[in-house]
Amino acid sequence: MKGSEGLLATAAAAGVDTCFANPGTTEIPLVEAFDQQSGVRAVLGLSEGVVTGAADGYGRMTSKPALTLLHLGPGFANGIANLHNARRARTPIINLIGEHASWHQSADAPLNSDIESLARPVSGWVGRTTSPSTAPGEFAEAYLAALRDRLPATLIAAADHMWRQGAMPVEVPAAPARPQVDEQRVAEIAKVLSSGRRPVLLLGGQALENPEGIRTAVRIAAKAGGEVLAERGSARVERGPMIPPVRTLPYFPEAMSATFEGFSDVILVGARTPVSFFGYKGQPSHPLPDDVKVHELADADSDALTALAALAEATDSAAEKLPQAKRPQVTAPTGALDADAIAVAIVLTQPENAIVVNEGVSSSAAYPAIADAAPAHCELSQTGGAIGMGMPVATGAAIACPDRAVINLQADGSAAYTVQALWTQAREELNVTTVICSNSRYRILDEELRRAGIDDPGAAAASMTSLADPALDWLQLAQGFGVEATRATTGEQLRTALSRALTEPGPHLVEAVL
Amino acid sequence: MKGSEGLLATAAAAGVDTCFANPGTTEIPLVEAFDQQSGVRAVLGLSEGVVTGAADGYGRMTSKPALTLLHLGPGFANGIANLHNARRARTPIINLIGEHASWHQSADAPLNSDIESLARPVSGWVGRTTSPSTAPGEFAEAYLAALRDRLPATLIAAADHMWRQGAMPVEVPAAPARPQVDEQRVAEIAKVLSSGRRPVLLLGGQALENPEGIRTAVRIAAKAGGEVLAERGSARVERGPMIPPVRTLPYFPEAMSATFEGFSDVILVGARTPVSFFGYKGQPSHPLPDDVKVHELADADSDALTALAALAEATDSAAEKLPQAKRPQVTAPTGALDADAIAVAIVLTQPENAIVVNEGVSSSAAYPAIADAAPAHCELSQTGGAIGMGMPVATGAAIACPDRAVINLQADGSAAYTVQALWTQAREELNVTTVICSNSRYRILDEELRRAGIDDPGAAAASMTSLADPALDWLQLAQGFGVEATRATTGEQLRTALSRALTEPGPHLVEAVL
Repeated sequence: MKGSEGLLATAAAAGVDTCFANPGTTEIPLVEAFDQQSGVRAVLGLSEGVVTGAADGYGRMTSKPALTLLHLGPGFANGIANLHNARRARTPIINLIGEHASWHQSADAPLNSDIESLARPVSGWVGRTTSPSTAPGEFAEAYLAALRDRLPATLIAAADHMWRQGAMPVEVPAAPARPQVDEQRVAEIAKVLSSGRRPVLLLGGQALENPEGIRTAVRIAAKAGGEVLAERGSARVERGPMIPPVRTLPYFPEAMSATFEGFSDVILVGARTPVSFFGYKGQPSHPLPDDVKVHELADADSDALTALAALAEATDSAAEKLPQAKRPQVTAPTGALDADAIAVAIVLTQPENAIVVNEGVSSSAAYPAIADAAPAHCELSQTGGAIGMGMPVATGAAIACPDRAVINLQADGSAAYTVQALWTQAREELNVTTVICSNSRYRILDEELRRAGIDDPGAAAASMTSLADPALDWLQLAQGFGVEATRATTGEQLRTALSRALTEPGPHLVEAVL
Repeated sequence: MKGSEGLLATAAAAGVDTCFANPGTTEIPLVEAFDQQSGVRAVLGLSEGVVTGAADGYGRMTSKPALTLLHLGPGFANGIANLHNARRARTPIINLIGEHASWHQSADAPLNSDIESLARPVSGWVGRTTSPSTAPGEFAEAYLAALRDRLPATLIAAADHMWRQGAMPVEVPAAPARPQVDEQRVAEIAKVLSSGRRPVLLLGGQALENPEGIRTAVRIAAKAGGEVLAERGSARVERGPMIPPVRTLPYFPEAMSATFEGFSDVILVGARTPVSFFGYKGQPSHPLPDDVKVHELADADSDALTALAALAEATDSAAEKLPQAKRPQVTAPTGALDADAIAVAIVLTQPENAIVVNEGVSSSAAYPAIADAAPAHCELSQTGGAIGMGMPVATGAAIACPDRAVINLQADGSAAYTVQALWTQAREELNVTTVICSNSRYRILDEELRRAGIDDPGAAAASMTSLADPALDWLQLAQGFGVEATRATTGEQLRTALSRALTEPGPHLVEAVL
């Protein structure tokens, strides 16, 4: 069979079932192979930021890699920002980049560029096909790397290696398990916990994606007289009535540091040492009080769940009763909208088992603050800070989980980067409800100007934070991409609009005017 | 003054007057400096593909660099595709990337990434600021590199170098002139031309941007019994009643090779040896008949105009009478639209001195084929093949030339990548008329499938070339971004719509339904 067919057959046999695609001429041999290999579904995106963000959303929900199909260096480049977020989310993805035919590369045709240089900053693995017959094995290598590293892996596939005959699918060996945390490390952490001081277990990655992980951590902390916190910007956090509430670290470094006041030790469980999102004058990179000691139980790669279970055993907390944490109380919002009202409206209308994709930016923090009042759900956050992830990640999550409602809490400025995702939502009839927090500003930049001491910006600076002139008409934009849309200016209207959107099939957009 | 103020003052003193911007927190010190340095106008784009494409359009029209202001690695990455086109167009641009504060970079905060690795493939020069006091000089280096290399230059500016005091503006020395072609080379080419064979002068870059260059080349070719051709995908081609018509090389390699049949020699004048856009089975990378010899008068960097003048002298053709070339005849289109009808409607309505930005893709070739029937104008083409350049380049060209009408002949699929540019057109009240060639397909991919022998693609392949389900509603999309829009389905309607759009101020979009 052709190289493209051998490659796709290898993917299908390994369990890859979805390819988010925006192909061009160098991908034509792969495009036609989708009709030979029905095991992999192709989902078209109007731009590559949609494609890679959707693969991130898919991978966060399934922990298995989707393919992306991207056109040479520039097509890949359009997808880098959301691959950056995927890298921070530790999402396995396999990027397939169609490259010029091998014999044509040295001619430096117009679309030629240094693809490796573009790919490396967002890929754990970068490789090239070398022939049709080796391409399936080279794909298998990319597949294993994506799962082993929990990162995007990028395979650059020369068009002639794809269109020529001579390939046979290969069997992909099972991905290696996460490395285990050694007993000595568990014993050391147990000793810290038993030393009678006040510890924080800071959870990240795998630990937050697993209800049992969260429960075990809460038991350990209760026994040690400490607390559990969640890393900021997690790929996926599970919540629900059966899961103890866990506070998320705040955004600004002063608040982050204040959160750790009074604690003696931070135990990292799949989390990194807390880091300030940006460097600010007079603030440290790692905002922790001087007397707090940091210890690592498990890094983001290791098997944090098994480590937590071992630590529970070592600290004799496995049978500890889960503390009865107070859950937030919410009241139906009325009148004019603000970020809190939007969050409450979502909490009050979201169905059981929803997936909430949060790129609210300056409106984002209100939701996790009260989300423990909601039915069981998971929240996917902004992991890498590259804005424009919300709509694409929601698209990919809905492809991955067709039976769950997806709610995208979405800032307007960030939505404008990858609004094209709405078209894929319409085309695939996805159950995504987008809530646009419409303040017609880059409000986070207003806040940053104030932090920099500019309370009253001049005309030039003010113009760079305003989206008001002209205001984006979100109803027309959504309808232009084929998505039904409505506007809400009060809490009552927002709840009504959300209830309707979440019961009707297919995508909806609700502009929540702030 | 602050580093940011010293840098911007240096830019303003060097004559930089425009900055296309999509800033974030690390650019806040630069954002506020625009209010101190009123010499540089900031123009906001909703996404970075708009920003860099606009800088390309601006630079193609002015031959001087605009600034771009971009947010860290991911923000820069979103602009790479249009920087790739700018690199192929040889457009000077200065990218300013706000980077984390110098002391914060090692903390690997979420937005941290390898910016150099991303920047190198599309930059002739990449550098970093090292302190507030040296930043203006480092900017001057980037400025000179952009003009010397005629390429994007990328300066990575650490936030603390921008916010700290200690800078003074520096004077930027004049950019070096283009290297001269030596006399011997001119004499050699003159000898080829006088050898009695049939030569082609293949013009590119500077030679096509200058009416006198085109006239001189046509005189030389007439004297030698040869012809003048234009390289495909030029940054800017000048046309008009006073400029002899010049055919453009066709897209596919078979047609390109056929164009050179019967010629003995190709003289490159600011052009490259013809290269196939993609590598096709059985087609060479450089589609030229075997017996055609290639000679280079001037490469894309050299002073092709002076070289042409010297060659005219050496071949005694300076006083040659310009041949009376036949200009195309056009008839007002009626009834259903096709690519030809759209091109004719533009030719018949475009005002004197228009700028035509052509990203028509499968509808693009019809326009240059008849554009010699139009009033004086210039055409900016797709140089690098990274689609999504049309709307942003049109935006930047309109900022550069506020007194000229800009017409964007635009494929629908490509428009969808950077449709956000319409918002900047609305905000800045730019005289841009966008003509969407609306066929609801990636038609070029249908053609490529046929070339690959797939006349009847299966459902999966067909779905990846179709934009029909749902069809994009271009009127709602345009209005959503604040641009007035109308739809035309016949030649009569299209001419009426174009006439109106081209006389009313501000941006307009016309959907031409194919």
